[in-house]
Amino acid sequence: MAKLTSRAEDYSKWYNELVVKADLAENSGVRGCMVIKPYGYAIWEKMRDEMDRKFKETGHQNAYFPIFIPKSYFEAEEQNAEGFAKECAVVTHYRLKADPDNPKKLIVDPDAKLEEELIVRPTSEAIIWSTYKNWIQSYRDLPILINQWANVVRWEMRTRLFLRTTEFLWQEGHTAHATKTEAIEETEQMLDIYAEFAEKFMAIPVIRGIKTASERFAGADETYCIEALMQDGKALQAGTSHFLGQNFSKAFDVKFTNNEGKIEYPWATSWGTSTRLMGALIMTHSDDQGLVLPPTLAPIQVVIVPIFKGEEQLKQIDEVAIRIQDKLKASGISVKYDNRTEYKPGWKFAEYELKGVPVRVAIGARDLENGTVEIARRDNLSKETQPLENVEKYIEDLLNTIQRDIYKKALDFRDSHITQVESYEEFKKVLEEKGGFIAAHWDGTPEEEEQIKNETKATIRCIPLNNVMEDGVSMVSGKPSAQRVIFAKAY
Amino acid sequence: MAKLTSRAEDYSKWYNELVVKADLAENSGVRGCMVIKPYGYAIWEKMRDEMDRKFKETGHQNAYFPIFIPKSYFEAEEQNAEGFAKECAVVTHYRLKADPDNPKKLIVDPDAKLEEELIVRPTSEAIIWSTYKNWIQSYRDLPILINQWANVVRWEMRTRLFLRTTEFLWQEGHTAHATKTEAIEETEQMLDIYAEFAEKFMAIPVIRGIKTASERFAGADETYCIEALMQDGKALQAGTSHFLGQNFSKAFDVKFTNNEGKIEYPWATSWGTSTRLMGALIMTHSDDQGLVLPPTLAPIQVVIVPIFKGEEQLKQIDEVAIRIQDKLKASGISVKYDNRTEYKPGWKFAEYELKGVPVRVAIGARDLENGTVEIARRDNLSKETQPLENVEKYIEDLLNTIQRDIYKKALDFRDSHITQVESYEEFKKVLEEKGGFIAAHWDGTPEEEEQIKNETKATIRCIPLNNVMEDGVSMVSGKPSAQRVIFAKAY
Repeated sequence: MAKLTSRAEDYSKWYNELVVKADLAENSGVRGCMVIKPYGYAIWEKMRDEMDRKFKETGHQNAYFPIFIPKSYFEAEEQNAEGFAKECAVVTHYRLKADPDNPKKLIVDPDAKLEEELIVRPTSEAIIWSTYKNWIQSYRDLPILINQWANVVRWEMRTRLFLRTTEFLWQEGHTAHATKTEAIEETEQMLDIYAEFAEKFMAIPVIRGIKTASERFAGADETYCIEALMQDGKALQAGTSHFLGQNFSKAFDVKFTNNEGKIEYPWATSWGTSTRLMGALIMTHSDDQGLVLPPTLAPIQVVIVPIFKGEEQLKQIDEVAIRIQDKLKASGISVKYDNRTEYKPGWKFAEYELKGVPVRVAIGARDLENGTVEIARRDNLSKETQPLENVEKYIEDLLNTIQRDIYKKALDFRDSHITQVESYEEFKKVLEEKGGFIAAHWDGTPEEEEQIKNETKATIRCIPLNNVMEDGVSMVSGKPSAQRVIFAKAY
Repeated sequence: MAKLTSRAEDYSKWYNELVVKADLAENSGVRGCMVIKPYGYAIWEKMRDEMDRKFKETGHQNAYFPIFIPKSYFEAEEQNAEGFAKECAVVTHYRLKADPDNPKKLIVDPDAKLEEELIVRPTSEAIIWSTYKNWIQSYRDLPILINQWANVVRWEMRTRLFLRTTEFLWQEGHTAHATKTEAIEETEQMLDIYAEFAEKFMAIPVIRGIKTASERFAGADETYCIEALMQDGKALQAGTSHFLGQNFSKAFDVKFTNNEGKIEYPWATSWGTSTRLMGALIMTHSDDQGLVLPPTLAPIQVVIVPIFKGEEQLKQIDEVAIRIQDKLKASGISVKYDNRTEYKPGWKFAEYELKGVPVRVAIGARDLENGTVEIARRDNLSKETQPLENVEKYIEDLLNTIQRDIYKKALDFRDSHITQVESYEEFKKVLEEKGGFIAAHWDGTPEEEEQIKNETKATIRCIPLNNVMEDGVSMVSGKPSAQRVIFAKAY
């Protein structure tokens, strides 16, 4: 197996190689669409299950809406159309037929043209709010708290595995409420759920904030987000929660009778996370040896590798290994005992390092004699010899320790990469030399934001929630500013 | 709430009404596409989770492949193209733009025409085998045991909720094997898994069999199926498992080196079940009052309804009800205590009957005095008074009894609707007057099959596995036949 390109050498190349070599995903024959391979999908399933559990705990239900959206639905909500209709897959026909000039070939049947084109959903507000129109008449029908796990398609010109693909998997929550207050509370609740999921489950520290108007979701009154920092100093938006106001209820003419008998438009939210989180996971924790996975997300949490000469020795090791495996499994830990004889221990070590298995247990002849095993941590690559007795408890604790340590490491990195700057010069210097989040004053205008973006490629990632108010002046225009905002280059 | 049309009056209307009134699904604004509502989706989730568990237990892994398939991929496997390319959603463009003549409208951007059209997957053999080409080089790479949960699109002219929709949800397994024997074993194993799932989990008895050549999946060498019988005497194909031979490996030029160093084409299977199973579930168990759900699939297994006058009484009942609820929940039973005051008990009874909640517990003032509760079974609508003491254990046992009884009832119905006939006259008479499965001799030719289909609308559902060999003569042509096959009209 050829070595991975190192991160220092070429971060982008390291990422692309790692995704493929660790069997997470690969490009398909369809432009911009990926194949999520079993190992990658198993990680995504763990993310999905945990989020799904949190959604249900907070009263949400899953449902499923059509993949196709008639073109005219996009015309209903102007901003949304503006934001999404430009880059979408358009279904215009519903039949192929044999090519009369070349019977082995197929052509689009011109007689099977749709009266109205269908768009493969880039997001589902339009189709869902056109459905909610029939579901919502009275305040008794509210709130509606629905989530959907689905595939969506956005016609991206430049794609990268997980980070930006034409088709991706995601969840999209779509809720309807009787009051503005309740909708805003929902928006904030879902942001909190995302943040807690990112930090506790994925071990990725995030900044919770609000987007500026120009970075807002098309059709939202306010977009909340969680922003993570990758190892190369670039930010990655890991989830968004939108307060949609009454934009979609008005666009689709959804009304309800409130508890005083008056007709009102309901208030909406939508919120989403996607397979992009896989990219965040990889670029937060992994190293030059391969993936580093938090134990919560590892399809295999512990691998046991025998180091043996001859069948007799292997048999003896088998006995010990299988006992450990059974005990760990009984505690709900996923374990693989790899006693394949066609691969050498060294090859296996490299393979499981590449795949990010958090704990490796090696057992050799010497260990058998001494009643020990060798335990290696994937996150810091440390090794130690442990007595066989109670080793299962030791491993269980170690998995918790690794989860904490991985988060702590990412948090330290993130915190040491939030830099306050006072001038545009300093801003550019930090951006170029150090990267990371930059906390700076901004005059609040989209014009200045645009200028900074054009000149430096940095965008305002968010205005942090619970921000410290601090009088200052914008680093570019010199106009007064009441708080710092967070800039960064971003994925 | 208006009453359901009865099954006797109009079975088809009863079905359509029930799906909508029980909040399972509804038609969307997109032709032939349905919205699966939260209650319906919760049932589908239970099916999915149980099947997923069984797939993983037998060594399968999930993955995800692109929704789009380039047109040329369909040209590779002739039969498959023939079978599916005719009815599909074709993506021809990747952008909309503002209509210059009417800025509020959108039009397809003629400059954004795709060089090669993309088909929204009707099934994924083509895209998956084009991917396997890169995954399979050696016998060590085999078997590949992959499943995918996904949405697929087939352009159906006449659609019905769950039974036949343009878009539907399904799982599709796609495996590759080094030997023919192993692939056939896989095909049969998956059929067994489907059959066991249908019978044990969905309480739907099925006949396992093999399709005739004309009913075979396009691209398969052999199609295995499970066939269920609906209450109106029509059959429903509930799952299929295909032995694909080397058709797809040859079409996509996938080869491997076997353990003797020779180059071979791998052997393939594919197998699928879909949201169509929701239709089978409804039409196997439900009645004129609404849904009947086996406890395994019920989102709410037990509902507790208080019958009270005044707040004081409700408070007393609350106490008892919540105690029962907590104990049942602790045993993993899903319970809803519906103490809403804005709905009358009678309304609630009808509502939960419609929704198919297997067990209803009613608690009134008299019950409080006597230390009893009233327990009603949804499946046979029987009621009885039970002492409060140990009622949780009683309910837990009752759920198991209901699961068994529902299956038994469906099995008795099915078994009493398998009719052996000896002549074509008798065949037509049974088909018209009784319906159900008809076991008859057939001469083995597609011509006779076609003739019977044209004249009676009945098709050969399957040649049962482990069929009893019995010499006879075809009821139409009079030619010799070695075994009976199963005919029926089908969904």
